[in-house]
Amino acid sequence: MGKGLLYVISGPSGAGKGTICKRILEELDIDLSISMTTRKPREGEVDGVNYYFVSREEFQERIEADGFLEYAQVYENFYGTPKQMVMEQLAKGRDVLLEIDTQGALNVKKAYPEGVAIFLLPPSLEELRKRLTGRGTETPEAVELRLSKTLNEISCMTEYDYCVVNDDLDVAVSHVVSIMKAEHFKVSRGVHDLMKRYEEER
Amino acid sequence: MGKGLLYVISGPSGAGKGTICKRILEELDIDLSISMTTRKPREGEVDGVNYYFVSREEFQERIEADGFLEYAQVYENFYGTPKQMVMEQLAKGRDVLLEIDTQGALNVKKAYPEGVAIFLLPPSLEELRKRLTGRGTETPEAVELRLSKTLNEISCMTEYDYCVVNDDLDVAVSHVVSIMKAEHFKVSRGVHDLMKRYEEER
Repeated sequence: MGKGLLYVISGPSGAGKGTICKRILEELDIDLSISMTTRKPREGEVDGVNYYFVSREEFQERIEADGFLEYAQVYENFYGTPKQMVMEQLAKGRDVLLEIDTQGALNVKKAYPEGVAIFLLPPSLEELRKRLTGRGTETPEAVELRLSKTLNEISCMTEYDYCVVNDDLDVAVSHVVSIMKAEHFKVSRGVHDLMKRYEEER
Repeated sequence: MGKGLLYVISGPSGAGKGTICKRILEELDIDLSISMTTRKPREGEVDGVNYYFVSREEFQERIEADGFLEYAQVYENFYGTPKQMVMEQLAKGRDVLLEIDTQGALNVKKAYPEGVAIFLLPPSLEELRKRLTGRGTETPEAVELRLSKTLNEISCMTEYDYCVVNDDLDVAVSHVVSIMKAEHFKVSRGVHDLMKRYEEER
């Protein structure tokens, strides 16, 4: 049994990361990486399901012990991807899915280059504007700010391994599933066990 | 519209190259590369379908004009992959499928490194022995010779991009299809057109 693969799904806000990851979890036998945060649980959020909720002190200690694949501070709260859990799952041969913002994705890719980084794109800025406006949670100014940020994020696309435009959800999911399956057959991921098996059979 | 991709499907005799390629042609919108040969057409073989049948002189001229992605002499006959036709199809944005023996595949990969080389493997040497014996066309000695050759071929597997074990045909086909689809989303194949589109929209 080989090591599992780490898939990092990212992209601008409104590209459909969350929806696509939910579908991936339904279609493939894969574990979701749960983030750790210092923010308080919201109504209905469960520790170990939505997030691992920890104190600021616990988070700080973990940072100092190099216990995160990546972490970031957003306003007064910290968010991070606990390294040990991901590594243990991969060592057991389990594939791990990580849904994360573009800054976090690039940090994970730096910390773990064998990870497969997939960038999701909205079909156009116009469509992204519609999606963000449709959520009804953001002011027009905030939407324009997000669009500017999106262009910056798109300029970092070359740091990723794959890029999928999320125009039709079903099609985008099938593309991502193909990518995730294909990665398992890469010779660069190691075929020595396989080669040995044939030699020994001889 | 980007350039098409060249997929090189190879593997030892008995790995199921031909059957899998036939299925790929049914499932995907892709062109098959037709080889050129100096051997005489057999009963029922059609020029431009099974092979391009040419004279030894024509073949020789093409070799001298660097007109092959790869070619080889097998006993008294020559076989080769005409370069121009493949390149024209790729330039038109068409994907091209090339089914070829392992020596030819490595030569194509050298001549055209952007090609996607997929190595097909039988599930075991024992299973391969059964398949080769089942064909009823080879003596037991010839089968053993093929098995030895297979081990040599397997030792070159690391030169390929992907490796798929053909245990169950349907499963193997779906793996190869995933690989072929996924390759289109590789950032390394170029996302500048895509990036430009978003910038211009802004």
